[in-house]
Amino acid sequence: MHRRRRHAAVVISGTELARKLHREIQRDVEELVSQGNVRPHLGVVSVGDDPASRTYVRNKTRAASILGISSDTVVLPSSVSQEKLLELIDKMNRDWKVSGLLVQLPLPEHINERAVCNAIAPEKDVDGFHIVNIGKLCLDQRSMIPATPAAVWEIIKRAGIETAGKNVLVAGRSKNVGMPIAMLLHSDRNHERPGGDATVTIAHRRTPRERLKELTNLADIIVAAAGVPGLITADMVKEGAAVIDVGINRIQDPKTGKVRLIGDVDFEGVKEKAGFITPVPGGVGPMTVAMLMKNTVTAARNALIPKPRFPMV
Amino acid sequence: MHRRRRHAAVVISGTELARKLHREIQRDVEELVSQGNVRPHLGVVSVGDDPASRTYVRNKTRAASILGISSDTVVLPSSVSQEKLLELIDKMNRDWKVSGLLVQLPLPEHINERAVCNAIAPEKDVDGFHIVNIGKLCLDQRSMIPATPAAVWEIIKRAGIETAGKNVLVAGRSKNVGMPIAMLLHSDRNHERPGGDATVTIAHRRTPRERLKELTNLADIIVAAAGVPGLITADMVKEGAAVIDVGINRIQDPKTGKVRLIGDVDFEGVKEKAGFITPVPGGVGPMTVAMLMKNTVTAARNALIPKPRFPMV
Repeated sequence: MHRRRRHAAVVISGTELARKLHREIQRDVEELVSQGNVRPHLGVVSVGDDPASRTYVRNKTRAASILGISSDTVVLPSSVSQEKLLELIDKMNRDWKVSGLLVQLPLPEHINERAVCNAIAPEKDVDGFHIVNIGKLCLDQRSMIPATPAAVWEIIKRAGIETAGKNVLVAGRSKNVGMPIAMLLHSDRNHERPGGDATVTIAHRRTPRERLKELTNLADIIVAAAGVPGLITADMVKEGAAVIDVGINRIQDPKTGKVRLIGDVDFEGVKEKAGFITPVPGGVGPMTVAMLMKNTVTAARNALIPKPRFPMV
Repeated sequence: MHRRRRHAAVVISGTELARKLHREIQRDVEELVSQGNVRPHLGVVSVGDDPASRTYVRNKTRAASILGISSDTVVLPSSVSQEKLLELIDKMNRDWKVSGLLVQLPLPEHINERAVCNAIAPEKDVDGFHIVNIGKLCLDQRSMIPATPAAVWEIIKRAGIETAGKNVLVAGRSKNVGMPIAMLLHSDRNHERPGGDATVTIAHRRTPRERLKELTNLADIIVAAAGVPGLITADMVKEGAAVIDVGINRIQDPKTGKVRLIGDVDFEGVKEKAGFITPVPGGVGPMTVAMLMKNTVTAARNALIPKPRFPMV
């Protein structure tokens, strides 16, 4: 078998796409406000003092402020009881000034994360983790879509990558990333929440390496969301495929001791073979924060719609 | 390429497996009753006079009666308003004598099926179509699993077919069959509701024929749930694979004019190559009714558990 010489992949800049999306969100926010509505507001609850969580929260509230979305962060000690946390959520659910509401995960051991996710009012649930939002996502109903899968979907659409009738391989089956991505990409484009009409394979840690390679080699789009550095290598990728890297792995350089971020894809090798590739950092990451902001604007719009008679529909 | 002579596939009798399951359910029912609990009761609501729906309802209530599950069927005219139907469901939700409750689908055009599914109390929802049960299924939480996907899962387990690390191809992405089967088979066996740990591909009408064949040929298990007669032919099946046929297609014989049921699999051809195959009729069908009965017993057991503080969890 021989191979034609070809150009390296188009590197999709998530930073660039996010910048564009930011302008759209800013415009939407100002439109809402100029129509006499309250300014979209993001309420954030942060429990404990995990430095990574603090950084995430800061990135989110900073992005909000740049886009004209107001926000406030309630910091609770890691010793807070589940009851107290649920009481706070209930208060914020009923507060009309709070458009969107998120509780930064992970939570301390003694708190049931599922109970917390399900306590947030579904229409304010900008993380999309409430059981009803998960159910709606899986039934192709309009819902709050978790930010990371929404970011992957938005990147694919904005880069003009065709999904209908194509083979997609999703490596990773996490409930907030891999699973929803598979849902979005395989489902019907004519449903209430349009899907990608792709043939989707969900692979994961129990997929034997050899079989993974067989399947990735048939894929037109590979979404790497396994949290395994260097999982996807050039020999696994079909010439011209689109490779979306959702991995964020913190690696310490053995020489310098510095920590740097790498994805699940061997970027240097794969970019010589793929048609499209997203870098880490600067790929899915910036788009994820942008999609969270978009969800906050959606939540602000939800507040303008009168409550339906059967709110579960 | 030449092929070793081999025996034809093991034909898995769903009728036989269902008989065994019936005995287990009967024993569970009698145990519940002998412990002083009310007899499990299935409440059925049937709207209109579609003959197929009537047959389905009759099969379900007959199966219930054989297994010692009491039942009643409320028949409403097809002109019934959605409001009246929802009022009836609300009444049955609050009736402690009704353990499990199902509304036979499809419903007349003027009624929103999703609103009806979501009106049934999740713990009585033996069809597993409530949005919260769908969400829980997709998060690998314990839930009411719709009867057809549950039947496929039970057949695979009872036939001793290994799923972990295997390739599964599901043809069909319907929300009550294909999608939940993909969810059950790909997910983690160590989660609250154990999954199959398989690598799962979801194919559908938008999957080009040639690509479908490529993917089915890599599959250790094929689940055909597309509603397309003869979709899966011998050339698409890997030697020794397990082929589960969920299709129920009514075909009129051009000569005799008689209607007969056929599946999505070319049974005669495929059985010479597969390792396991389910027939139609007598495969998934009988197991589906049995799983609905099992769900009814689960619903009766749910009624014994005091309401949790946060019922959505």
